[in-house]
Order: sequence, then C-alpha cells, then structure tokens
Amino acid sequence: MKARLLSQKGYKPGNAPGALDAPEGALDPVAQIICYDPENLEEIEFTSIDDIPALLKKWPLVWINVSGLADVGLIEQLGIQFGIHPLALEDVVHIPQRAKVEEFENCLFAVFRMAVIQNDAHALEQVSLFLGKNFVLTFQERPGDVFEPIRERIRKGRPRIRMARPDYLVYALMDAVVDGYFPVLELYSDRLDALEERILNNPTQKMMEEVYRIKRELQLLRHCIWPLREAVGNLTSGEHGLVNPETALFLRDCQDHVIQVLDILENYRERISGLTDLYLSSISNKMNEVMKVLTIIATIFMPLGFLAGIYGMNFDTESPYNMPELSSPIGYPILLSVMALVGIGMLLYFKNLGWLGGGNKKKP
Amino acid sequence: MKARLLSQKGYKPGNAPGALDAPEGALDPVAQIICYDPENLEEIEFTSIDDIPALLKKWPLVWINVSGLADVGLIEQLGIQFGIHPLALEDVVHIPQRAKVEEFENCLFAVFRMAVIQNDAHALEQVSLFLGKNFVLTFQERPGDVFEPIRERIRKGRPRIRMARPDYLVYALMDAVVDGYFPVLELYSDRLDALEERILNNPTQKMMEEVYRIKRELQLLRHCIWPLREAVGNLTSGEHGLVNPETALFLRDCQDHVIQVLDILENYRERISGLTDLYLSSISNKMNEVMKVLTIIATIFMPLGFLAGIYGMNFDTESPYNMPELSSPIGYPILLSVMALVGIGMLLYFKNLGWLGGGNKKKP
Amino acid sequence: MKARLLSQKGYKPGNAPGALDAPEGALDPVAQIICYDPENLEEIEFTSIDDIPALLKKWPLVWINVSGLADVGLIEQLGIQFGIHPLALEDVVHIPQRAKVEEFENCLFAVFRMAVIQNDAHALEQVSLFLGKNFVLTFQERPGDVFEPIRERIRKGRPRIRMARPDYLVYALMDAVVDGYFPVLELYSDRLDALEERILNNPTQKMMEEVYRIKRELQLLRHCIWPLREAVGNLTSGEHGLVNPETALFLRDCQDHVIQVLDILENYRERISGLTDLYLSSISNKMNEVMKVLTIIATIFMPLGFLAGIYGMNFDTESPYNMPELSSPIGYPILLSVMALVGIGMLLYFKNLGWLGGGNKKKP
Amino acid sequence: MKARLLSQKGYKPGNAPGALDAPEGALDPVAQIICYDPENLEEIEFTSIDDIPALLKKWPLVWINVSGLADVGLIEQLGIQFGIHPLALEDVVHIPQRAKVEEFENCLFAVFRMAVIQNDAHALEQVSLFLGKNFVLTFQERPGDVFEPIRERIRKGRPRIRMARPDYLVYALMDAVVDGYFPVLELYSDRLDALEERILNNPTQKMMEEVYRIKRELQLLRHCIWPLREAVGNLTSGEHGLVNPETALFLRDCQDHVIQVLDILENYRERISGLTDLYLSSISNKMNEVMKVLTIIATIFMPLGFLAGIYGMNFDTESPYNMPELSSPIGYPILLSVMALVGIGMLLYFKNLGWLGGGNKKKP
Amino acid sequence: MKARLLSQKGYKPGNAPGALDAPEGALDPVAQIICYDPENLEEIEFTSIDDIPALLKKWPLVWINVSGLADVGLIEQLGIQFGIHPLALEDVVHIPQRAKVEEFENCLFAVFRMAVIQNDAHALEQVSLFLGKNFVLTFQERPGDVFEPIRERIRKGRPRIRMARPDYLVYALMDAVVDGYFPVLELYSDRLDALEERILNNPTQKMMEEVYRIKRELQLLRHCIWPLREAVGNLTSGEHGLVNPETALFLRDCQDHVIQVLDILENYRERISGLTDLYLSSISNKMNEVMKVLTIIATIFMPLGFLAGIYGMNFDTESPYNMPELSSPIGYPILLSVMALVGIGMLLYFKNLGWLGGGNKKKP
Repeated sequence: MKARLLSQKGYKPGNAPGALDAPEGALDPVAQIICYDPENLEEIEFTSIDDIPALLKKWPLVWINVSGLADVGLIEQLGIQFGIHPLALEDVVHIPQRAKVEEFENCLFAVFRMAVIQNDAHALEQVSLFLGKNFVLTFQERPGDVFEPIRERIRKGRPRIRMARPDYLVYALMDAVVDGYFPVLELYSDRLDALEERILNNPTQKMMEEVYRIKRELQLLRHCIWPLREAVGNLTSGEHGLVNPETALFLRDCQDHVIQVLDILENYRERISGLTDLYLSSISNKMNEVMKVLTIIATIFMPLGFLAGIYGMNFDTESPYNMPELSSPIGYPILLSVMALVGIGMLLYFKNLGWLGGGNKKKP
Repeated sequence: MKARLLSQKGYKPGNAPGALDAPEGALDPVAQIICYDPENLEEIEFTSIDDIPALLKKWPLVWINVSGLADVGLIEQLGIQFGIHPLALEDVVHIPQRAKVEEFENCLFAVFRMAVIQNDAHALEQVSLFLGKNFVLTFQERPGDVFEPIRERIRKGRPRIRMARPDYLVYALMDAVVDGYFPVLELYSDRLDALEERILNNPTQKMMEEVYRIKRELQLLRHCIWPLREAVGNLTSGEHGLVNPETALFLRDCQDHVIQVLDILENYRERISGLTDLYLSSISNKMNEVMKVLTIIATIFMPLGFLAGIYGMNFDTESPYNMPELSSPIGYPILLSVMALVGIGMLLYFKNLGWLGGGNKKKP
Repeated sequence: MKARLLSQKGYKPGNAPGALDAPEGALDPVAQIICYDPENLEEIEFTSIDDIPALLKKWPLVWINVSGLADVGLIEQLGIQFGIHPLALEDVVHIPQRAKVEEFENCLFAVFRMAVIQNDAHALEQVSLFLGKNFVLTFQERPGDVFEPIRERIRKGRPRIRMARPDYLVYALMDAVVDGYFPVLELYSDRLDALEERILNNPTQKMMEEVYRIKRELQLLRHCIWPLREAVGNLTSGEHGLVNPETALFLRDCQDHVIQVLDILENYRERISGLTDLYLSSISNKMNEVMKVLTIIATIFMPLGFLAGIYGMNFDTESPYNMPELSSPIGYPILLSVMALVGIGMLLYFKNLGWLGGGNKKKP
Repeated sequence: MKARLLSQKGYKPGNAPGALDAPEGALDPVAQIICYDPENLEEIEFTSIDDIPALLKKWPLVWINVSGLADVGLIEQLGIQFGIHPLALEDVVHIPQRAKVEEFENCLFAVFRMAVIQNDAHALEQVSLFLGKNFVLTFQERPGDVFEPIRERIRKGRPRIRMARPDYLVYALMDAVVDGYFPVLELYSDRLDALEERILNNPTQKMMEEVYRIKRELQLLRHCIWPLREAVGNLTSGEHGLVNPETALFLRDCQDHVIQVLDILENYRERISGLTDLYLSSISNKMNEVMKVLTIIATIFMPLGFLAGIYGMNFDTESPYNMPELSSPIGYPILLSVMALVGIGMLLYFKNLGWLGGGNKKKP
Repeated sequence: MKARLLSQKGYKPGNAPGALDAPEGALDPVAQIICYDPENLEEIEFTSIDDIPALLKKWPLVWINVSGLADVGLIEQLGIQFGIHPLALEDVVHIPQRAKVEEFENCLFAVFRMAVIQNDAHALEQVSLFLGKNFVLTFQERPGDVFEPIRERIRKGRPRIRMARPDYLVYALMDAVVDGYFPVLELYSDRLDALEERILNNPTQKMMEEVYRIKRELQLLRHCIWPLREAVGNLTSGEHGLVNPETALFLRDCQDHVIQVLDILENYRERISGLTDLYLSSISNKMNEVMKVLTIIATIFMPLGFLAGIYGMNFDTESPYNMPELSSPIGYPILLSVMALVGIGMLLYFKNLGWLGGGNKKKP
C-alpha cells in the first residue's frame, strides 16, 4: 500500500491560502467529458476550456473528469469557469486531505481517497469532486479508477443513472469509491487468515513483522476512511438544495457501507491484537519447552558426571579408607547400576512433573 | 460458529444499486403463509404470487415467511407486490448486512442476524423483515429458526398475538431473535468456565489458542448484535405510525434485552482478557520454577564436580607440595565429608532463598 | 460472591411476554405489610389478597414486602390488585434483570440488586419495587435485607419517614440499597490491601489467581451497579408526578452515592491492573536473579573444572613436551593459585557488573 | 499522601439522612470570623452562635471558617442559623465526599478536597463551603490551609477582594484550592523525573514499586479533582442569582485551571505507563545479556572440558588403536592448540552473532 | 524539544488574579508595529506607548507584536491602552497556558503554542493574541517566529491580506502557527522511520529509550495542540461580531488542519505502540535463540562428557567385571564411534525440532 500521511516535503507554513502548486510527482492531466440526458450521450476528449460554456448550455448534466494534477493552470481555469472557491482548489492539489464535504456558495465540494487494486495490492489516490446545479467535476491523481462500471451504465443507458441528475451521479461515484474498499478488505482478510494459520502452527519473528506491517497499513486505511463517515452524512444535510431527498435515501445506504467498512477494520484491529497476544504467549511457551529440555539434561547428567568424577580421583588406595570401592571386583557394575537408577529416577521425577510429553500433572 | 464479515467474493464495486444476485450457496426458497384474525387462522404453502392480493383483502394480517434466497425472481415479485424499495430488496440478498431498521414510504424494513443453535454450536443467519399496514414479510437464509414458539402461540390462539396486529407480530419475532442469543451466551459461559478451570489447573498453549478462538467468535457476535441496539430503538421512533404506543412498550423491553446481551458480551471480553493475563503470568511462573531446578542442580554439582576433578589430576605426588591429600590415609573420607557439607550448605542456602518448596523468605 | 449474569438455564426464546415461571430454586414467599400515617402504625403478616383493598382505603401508605418468589400465583394476584403491567411482573421473576426504572400508567417500576453481607462475604439479590399513589410494593429473592433500619425508623416514628409519603419511602429503600454497597467495597478494599502487601513482599502465582478472582467479582459488581446510575436519575425525571420535588433532592443525593460507588470500583480496577503489572515485573525480576546465580556459578566453575580436567589427562609424560607441569614439584600449588585467581577475577567482574548484591554499576 | 476513598468503617446503611456523627479522629473546632466592607474590617474569634445575627446585620459580608469537625452540635447550630439543608450538613461530616456543587433554596453548597503541602508531602482534606447572600461559611478538617494569602489580601485591603462580594470571595477560595494543586503536581514531577533517570540508568524492582505507588497516588488525586471540573462549572450555571456575571468570568478561569491540572495528571499517567514499558523491556534485555554470558561460557568450556575428559580416559594404551595420541611426544601441545582454536573459533562465532560488545550483525 | 507542563517553580496559590510577574528567564521585549491599509504600509519600531492612539486613529489596522515578556510594565501599559481584562494579561505572562480562545467585552483573546524549528529540533513558545476592532496585539516569548511569510505578504501587498481586516490577519497568524506543526511532524516521521528500520534489523535497549523519548515528546505536543481544536472553533462562534463570515470559512479550513495534525499524532502514537510490541517480541525471540544454542551445546556435550568421565574412572581392572572395555584393543575407537553417533543423533533430533536454522517442523 502506498499512502501518505503528510504532504510533500518543503511545505511552507505562512503561505497565502489558495496558492496552487502542483503536488510532487504529479502526472500530466487527461480530461474526459461525458454529457448526457435521458435520450442522448456525448463523450468528448477535453481540448479547450472555451468549449465548456456551450456544453453546459446544451446538456442537463456535464461530467468532467481530470486524471493527473500537474497542470495547475488548467485547474485554475476550471475553478474560474465553475466559480470554485480558492480554498477548495488548494485542497485539490494539496495531497493528502482529510476526507470532507464542504458547502460553498454555488457548489458542494467533496474530497476523499479512492482505493484502486492493482496486482493484489491497492493504491490510494485522492479524488476531489465538485457538485453544481448541472455539472459534476472530478479530479483524480492518476488515470485508472473504480468509475468504469458507472461509465458503462451511462453508456448502456440504464434508466436511473440516465435521469441525468448530478446528485445521483455523485452518489454513484461515492458509492463506487466506498464499495471499492471491500475488495481491499478481502485482500487483508486473506492475509490475516494466512498469518493466523502460520502463527498457530509455527510462530516466527517474521510473522510478527508482518503483523506490524498489516497493523500500520490498516491504521492508514482507517485514517482515510474514518472522516468519510461524517463527510457522506454532511452531503445530505445542509441547506444547499443540491441533493434531493430521493438521492439522500441512496446516500444513507452509502453511509451504511462506510460504517460497515469501519466495523470490519475495527474487527481486524482486534484480531491483530489477539494474534499478538497469541504470538507472545507462544514464544514464552517455546522458551519454556527449551528450558525444560536443558534442565532435564543437566539434572540427569550432572549428578552422573559427578559420580564418574569421584571414581576418577587418584587417592592412594593403599589406605583402606581411600576409595575401597575401586578395589571391589564388582565396583564397576554396581556403580553403573546406581547411575542407571539415578537417571531413571530423575526421568520419573520429570515425568511426574509433567515435563515429559506424556505427563500432565501439576508440580505439588 | 459460522459467520461472515464480508460478502461473497467477486462483489463488483460500481454496480447499479438494486441489482439482485442470489448470494453464493443460497438454498431454494420455501415460503409459508400464515393469515389470521382473532377468530380464524389459515396456514398455506405458498404457490403463486397471484394468490396474495386475495389474501391481503381477506385477512387483517398476512405473514409470509421465505426460507432460502436462491430464487431472486420470487423476491423481486414479492417486492413489486408489496411496493418495496429496490435498495431494501438488494439488502435482502446481500449478506451480511449491518443490523438496521429503515423507514420507507409504505413499510418499515429491518435486517438483523438470528442465532440458531444446532448440536451445541450456533449458526448465524440473516433475517430481513418488512412491516406494512396489514402484512409482515420475512426472509431467512435457511429453514430452521427461532420462530416456532410464535407460530405455536398463533395456532393456539393466545389472545395477545391473535389480536392480529402486524407491529405486535414484528415485536414477537424480534424478541424471539434477541432472546435466542441467550442460549448462545450460555454455551460460551460454559466454555469459558471450563477453560478457566483448566488454565487455573494446568495452562497449556492449546488453551491460549482456545482463548483466541472464543475471543474472535465473541467479537463477531458483538459485531452482529451491537447495531441491533440502535435498530430496535429506531423501530419505535419515526413518524411512520406503523408501530403503536402499546407495542413500543414491548419493544423497549426487547431493547433492554439487547443491552443485556451486550453487557454480558462485554463482561466475557473482560474475563478473557483476565484469562490471558493469568495464562501469561502462569507461564512466566513455570519458567521460573524450571530455572530454579536447573540452577539448584548446577549450583550443587558444579562445585562438587570441580572438587572431584581436582583430585583426578595427575600431578607427580613425589613432590610433597603436589596434592599431599592423595596420600593421606583418610583423604577420601574427608573429601566426601567436605562434599556433603558443600551440598547441604547449598541446599540450606536455597531453602533460605525460598526456592525449595517449604521456604517463603525473600532474598536479602 | 454469588451472582448470575444469565438467567437460569432452559430459558426458552419465543415465549409470550408476561408468562410467569418461578425462578429456579426460588423460596416460598413471606409477605409483610406495614401501614402507617404520621400518627399510627400497623404491622400485619400478609394472609389474603382480599384484605388489601380495605388497607388501601384506610391508610395513606401501605408497604407490602414479599421475600421469596416461588409462588407466582401470589405475584399475579398482587399484579392484578395493583394494576401492574405483565411485562413488569415478568421482570420480577426473571432473574437477573439489568437495573432500570420504568414508567407505567399507574405506577413506577424499579428493579435493581441489593448486596447483603453475611459472614464477610456478600450475596446479591434482586429487588423489584413498585411505587403507586398510596402503596409501595417490594419483592426480594430471600428473607434478610438492608431495610431493617428503615423499618426501625418507621416504628420509632422518626418525623421525616412518618410523613407517610410513598416517594420518600422509596427513596429511603433505594438509599439503603446503595449505601449497602459501601460495606461490600470495604471488604474488597481490605482484600486488595492484604494482596498488595503480599505481592510487594513475595509474589506467588496464587496471588495472581486471587487478583483474577477479585477482578471478576468487581466486574460483576460494576455490571450490577452501572445501570443503577441512570435508573435513579430516571426516577426523578418523567411526568408521572409520583415523586415530588423535595424527594427529588434526596434522590439526587442517592445518585451521588451511586456515582461514588462506581468511582471507587473504577479506582479498584486500576489498582488491580497496577498490581498485575507489579506482579509480572516482579516475576521477571526474580527470573533475572535466578539466572544470575546460575550464570555466576557456571562462569566460575566451568573454567576451573576445565583446568582440573587438563591436568587429569594421561599424556605420556616421558616426552618433555607432554604436560611438563605435572612433574614440577610446585605444579599443584601454582595451579591452585591460578584457579583462585580465576575465581576471584570472575567474582570481581560480576561485582563490577552489579550482579552481586553490593554492586550497582551498569554493564559498559 | 493520606487520603481515603471510603468513609470510616462502621458506616451503617439505612440510617436516616441528615443524621450527624462526627467523623472518626475529628479535631475540636476552631472557628474564625472575618467581617469586612470596602472600608472596614473586623476579625473575631468565634465565641457564641448568638453573636452571628448581629454581625450579619452590621456587615455586608461575614466569612466564618471552622477548622475541625468534632463538635457536631456547633455544626448543627450553624446549620439552623443559616438555614442549611440537613443533607448538606450530613455531607460536611461524611468524609470523603465526591466534589460537587449543589443548589439549595437559600444558598449554594460546594464540597471539594484541598491539598496542603507539609514537608515535601501533601495531605488532602475536605472543604465544605456555603455561599449565601451575605455570608460565606467554610468547614475544613484541620487547621492549616491554602487560604492565608486570601486573608492577607483582605487585611491589606486589596480593592477587588474588599468589594466584599461573597461570590468573589468564594471564587478566591476555590481558586486558591485549585492553584494549590500545582505545587503538588510539581512534587510528582520531581519524583517522576528522578525515577525516570534511575530507570534509564539501572532499573531495579524497587523502582517498579515506586512506579506503582506514584500511580496509585495520582489515581487518588485524579479521583478527587475530576468531579471538581463539573462542580466549578455548576457554580456559574443555575438560576440562584448568587454568582454575578463578572465573577463567572473569574470562575471560568478557575475551571480552566482545573482542566489544566487534569491534563497534567493525564500526561503523568501516560508517562508512568511509558516507564513501565521501559522497565519491562529493560528487564528482558538484561536477562538476554545474562543468558548470553552463560551461553558463551558454556559453549566454550563444554567442548574443551569434553576434550580434556577424552584424554583423561584410562584405555589400555598397549593396543595401538587405543588413544595413540597419548604416547605421541607432542600430543599435549597439539591438543592445547586444538583447544585454543576451538575457543577462539567460538569467540569469533559469537562476535559474528553480535553477542559480544563490539558486534552488531544479525544472526543469519 | 523544550516545553514545560508546569509553570515556573515557586508559583504561589492564593495570589490575587491579575497580578503580573515576568516568567522566569524571560527576554527583554522587542516590539514591532505594522500599520497598513489596502494602499499604504508603515513599519515602526515601538518606542513609546503614547504613539499608539495616533496610529489607531490613522490606520484601519495596527498590528503590534511584542517578542519577549520580561517587561511587565510594558505589558500592563498595553493592557490599559487596549482595555484588556487583567485575567487575560495574567495569562500572557503565566506560561504555559492551555490553548484557548476567550471572549472579553471589547476583544477576543487567544493563547496557544507555536512550534519554531531550529537546527532539526523544534521549540515551543507561547503566543498570546488579542483581536480588537482595529488592532491585533500579539505577544511571544522569544524573537523568531513563523509569521515572517505573513509580513512578506503584507509588504508585497497581496490583495487578500491587504484588505486590512484584523480578523483575516488573525486567521493568517493562526494558520501559520497550525501549518507550522507540519514540519515538526515531518521531523518525527523521519525519526520514526529510522527507528522502525533499526528495530526491524537489530533491536537494542537504546532504541526502546528513543521510543520512550519520542512518545513523551509526542504526548507533550498533543497536550499543546489538542485544546487548539476547540479554541479555533470558538473563534467563529460567539456573538462578538469580530470575525466576519468570510473569514469564518477560512478558519474552518484552519480547524481542519488542526484535526489533521491530531490525526497524524494519533497515528504516530499507534505506530509507537506497535513498535513497542515488535521490540518486546523480538527480545523474547532473541532470548529463545540464545537458549536454544545453550541447550543444544549442553545436550550434546553433557552426555559425551559423562561417557569420557566413565572411562576415566580408576576401578581395579584386575576384576573382569570392572571396566573390561578399557582392556579391549579397540575400546577407544568403539567409544569414539558411539560418541559420534550420540552427537549426530542429538543434532538430528534438534534439526527435527526445528531448532537448527534449516528446520521448521513443530515439536510433536
């Protein structure tokens, strides 16, 4: 996952609000215009800002989508054309923004993050959206988005979307963005399942690092989605009259989905915390096992080694008090028997403690 | 426990809202109709959608229960018959939904999870419920539910349920669902009791895995029940006039039960966290015991072994400075006595430290 | 402590609300009636339900207290006599209920838990209370309660209680219940003090199990008392007019006490969490001490043992290169000196590390 | 620190409210009266309750301060004189009370804890305060308080305090109490700084016990101050008209200080939790160091000791297959070289693992 | 980072509010006056308080900035000149204050902390700000601030700032302060990134101490910024009419930034908690590795050493029962083979347990 918490470096506090600088590494914009009414549809490659007034006059709904934020001139022109407040324009190019919906005089401004899945990973990019009386203006960081099915529905003339109401189009776009998080959650669900199985089987520190990584990524994801809950709610409240009650019903459904995403993230968070506990207890347990092996070995062989050491001493056996055992004709077999008894006794003791596989009694 | 957090895989963001696809693995529907008034009762196997208008005319209350969601055609027909909003129909087949109650123009829509106990385990299935002026329409994933006692009460003509008011029937159904969670909690209570006893007696890593599993399942359960609290509250508020004040009194009681379920889940959660602490401290303690055994053994036999090693050296005893002890006629018994003293001294020292069973003094 | 979180087993979801079954193990009821006005007092053993209307006519305040819930017939009769809603009656026999206050048409219903101390332990039992215009009706699970001092105050004719206002009597009862928790808290305070001292002196796993037990009991206690806060507040709000403003002042004081109980429980909870940390760190510390002893012993005696082993080898000392030390006349004293130096050196090293009692320097 | 969470033992639930018993160990009261107007000032030792009506008539503001609560008769007399509600009087002698402000018919009642520093420790004592139209009545447990600077300001005739408005005097008293917590926080800040430095340098279990003690004391402190936030806010709200808007401005400032105290306590709490983590990780780390020393020693000397043991065996060297090394003229130097190589090899291996001071590579 | 939680020592509770004492170590003030209208600009070094009334008459906006708080006389004079409440003046010199915005009769008072970056570290200093009808008065502790770009914008005559509305200037100042936290967050982001990499590679206790330090600093930072959220919100609410709606739009944006800063701090906090978990698990893991090495070595060499010890015993080999192996011509090679088998067997056993690098099987 690639996502930033902080804007590009070198951001200078104290600058005038509304000053536009293209974000670092921004791509050249590709702008696409879709105009439609219930009967007709026109898809145009954006060429000049001057074409737009004519389109706005002709069509009940003009959707302009700009992918790539390198050309701040274009963004400023569009801002002037649609009467957008400079603070909102600044938010378009200042990445990342906290998800929010703001009401301006003649339009609603929404900014949020969109998750696009590529090769089993997901990238987050910022989408800025302006909703006016007869236009929808969207900016995204890169080409490639979750809006393609919506374009298909427009092209195929599906009745509800072709009513050509901008608020419904905005709902469709936000719903696509929110629903686009579910496949990302599925990826994490798979990773967590795999990790859980591996930690239950044979925990290693690598897994703990993976746990840490997933935790960080989910934190970042939650960081992006959390404010969306409030933002979607703000779309329907307010006195702007840009969202009609029928669409508000759909947006309520969309907000339900945001809450569901957050619920699932919370559930993942608790699962990760459970996995951490499980891992730590498992490590402690393994250590216990290792220590038991060491203690069993030491406890058996130290006394035996000591006995062998005794009879390796060189006391003068002339004296009858000095190591008479050595001269006994069966000293050796007796000693071996004693050693065997000591060894077996120790083993039985440990078996009794439950330290050997079969036992499960508690130390008294 | 079997429950999903995420919908079936392959869910495509950007689809039009209201598009119906049967959930993966859905069963063929079995539909049952119960019509009754205070005096009469008719139970019919559902055959055709065309019979329904006649029934609605004839009876003050028609309850249609559909078990199995494979036939989306049937669901759509019922939706048209009862004037149900497409978004609500979509929620019927999109599993799982967050528990919620929504107000539509001519009906109330509630969706929640029902716990059905089978063989000491419980399964969760989604129940969708529509409450109209003279009908109640319920969908469930599988045959088998907690509603049988309600059907019995209807059949037996119990006065309150036979008043044939749809809002009271809805209360009865929701109350059965909520009360159906208590036996599930009982199962977990039993599992926690057993686990607690085993952890207090002889903790093993297997128990920690069981703790983890119970924790996950309770999280999932809480995830299902938590939004129900708000949902039941929403049933009584609102201006739809479908729930009369007398029933609101009963629903308040039902909401109390939801809160009680959540309280108990919270209590279980804290108990599990306590068990984890107990387990970890017990593991640390066991390690301490193991280490003490090892240290006692090593501390006794290492000096003794060293002494034995000394007198196993081969210095030339011709010189009077070289190991004169070896030639002493009572060198060996003296050494053995010294060794015994060293060993006993060590044991007394450890006893004093409280490392041996009987001692409980603190190391100075 | 004896308290249940869940109702008796075998509770069947789907039953009609208001169906009365005596709780498992319920005792036979003993009912006592106290009627009084500022001048007179009559204490009667309850004999028949038929006497009650006459009493209600004669006295401004009739307090009926029923101890023991086995006779559901009696409870139903009382319910009919005083016009009590079936849902409230059901709550009287369904144990345990979450503490709550509910407003019905002609009475207020309160249910909560009372702590009764017996032999240094406490038992919780459910008290249900109905407040009407000129009656107070209380149910408790067992004889024996915290209401005796109130009965005494009535008998002795203390002016405030003998005003014979039912709302003041209810306040007095609830205040006795709430204040009855303080001695229970005192018991826990004593147990925690004792535990704290023992953990600071010589922590053992037994104490951790005691910590766990106290934690569970306090959770249960908090579970009982928490909803009481809201419940006492609900007594004074509402439009029932059964509680007059003067008594509301007293109830505000009672609610303050509930909050104080909860504050103290929270404080105990934090103390327990601190004790757990302390215990765990102390166990780790003890392990460290054990390990240091082992390491010191091994580090001193392993090299010494090795040296002794060297000179126990049987190389052919004919060759001048093979162990010439053995033939040296002072080989043995020299070796002993070397060994002493090695041992003392090691001890000094460990002293320097701060591993021996006196040292407190840090390892470089 | 000396503070109680629970009242004195033997508190009997069920007692009539308003019954006054002197708290255990209460001191004999010393009462001081200060009467003043902008021009004049009179300080009187309290002698008889009968003098008070005259004083109240003569002066616009009479401040009576009672230190010591043993004489409940005096407290009752004062209560009757100033028309104080019995519940409030009961709170004066029931110690400890949760900090609160309550509105009675003819006065405001505030109760809170005051921190008095003595010899680098602080004691908490309860202050009860009654604010009426032309009097301020304060009770404290012991002589010695933080009000001396206020008395000085009154005596020196500072203009604002000499306006002789009781609400301003109450503000001054509460502000002194709140600001009196800052020096206490300073004491804890110093203790935490010292502790932090010691834990960073050389952590011992004693410090953990100190951490636990500080944590408990701060909990108790927070327990006392937390409700003060709401209490000070309550002083200004309400319709009693006893606090005029200008003073409300000052009280807002006082409430800011309470919030600041709570913020700092929260900060200390987090710091303590960080110290605990640091301590635990440091203990684990030290254990690791100890274990490394042990393992290095054992890993070097066990193989060497084994080699020495081999050549100490007594096989019959007549056979050319039995230990021919012993007869080799340079067997001994060769063996010593091998031993040196093994030892150095082991050391290099551990250096490579980063177990020795200089290394910092990771185990492959 | 340098920041205080508590005021300078020696703060005496009970002092009259509004008494001004210069904070400890305060610098001599440097005061700068900027007056401007849309067309003209005048920058004056402050010389005498008497010049100010003329300036206020002449210019629509006078901004006086005082750096250094040692001269309380000057601060008092300014307070009198601008009619500032003594409580607010007290807050200017009492450092640190909790960030807040307060409404006084003729001005708004805001106090907060400003982060100034110097040499890769940041210092926090308190800024007090008074907003009146035609003046802005700011106090800061030291020269050097984040306001230079604003002065540049004024000098360069940027249209929006040169409208010369004091509320917009205040917004610009607060925005500069809030945006000034982002570079500080960047510094911490870099430190956390570096720390994370080092902990993943080779964790040492030093890093844990760094974690602790960063945690404390972030707590302090959050402590400073948290109340700012509410404070900025308070600027726009209220009935003072000093902030016009257009500026409120900008302040909303500024508040968004405060929330973003807090979000990022929260994210850092969670990251630090994750790092602590990672560190602890890594230490446990390392200990496990160390213990395994020790156990492997001991388990291999203890039995081998015992065998060597056996054949070093001096039993009288005359008896055919005593150690006949010693006389066998191939006793030695046989023993060596047995030892090799034992050693290899142990190694295979540990490989099977997964204790050696290559293995990853679980102990049965």
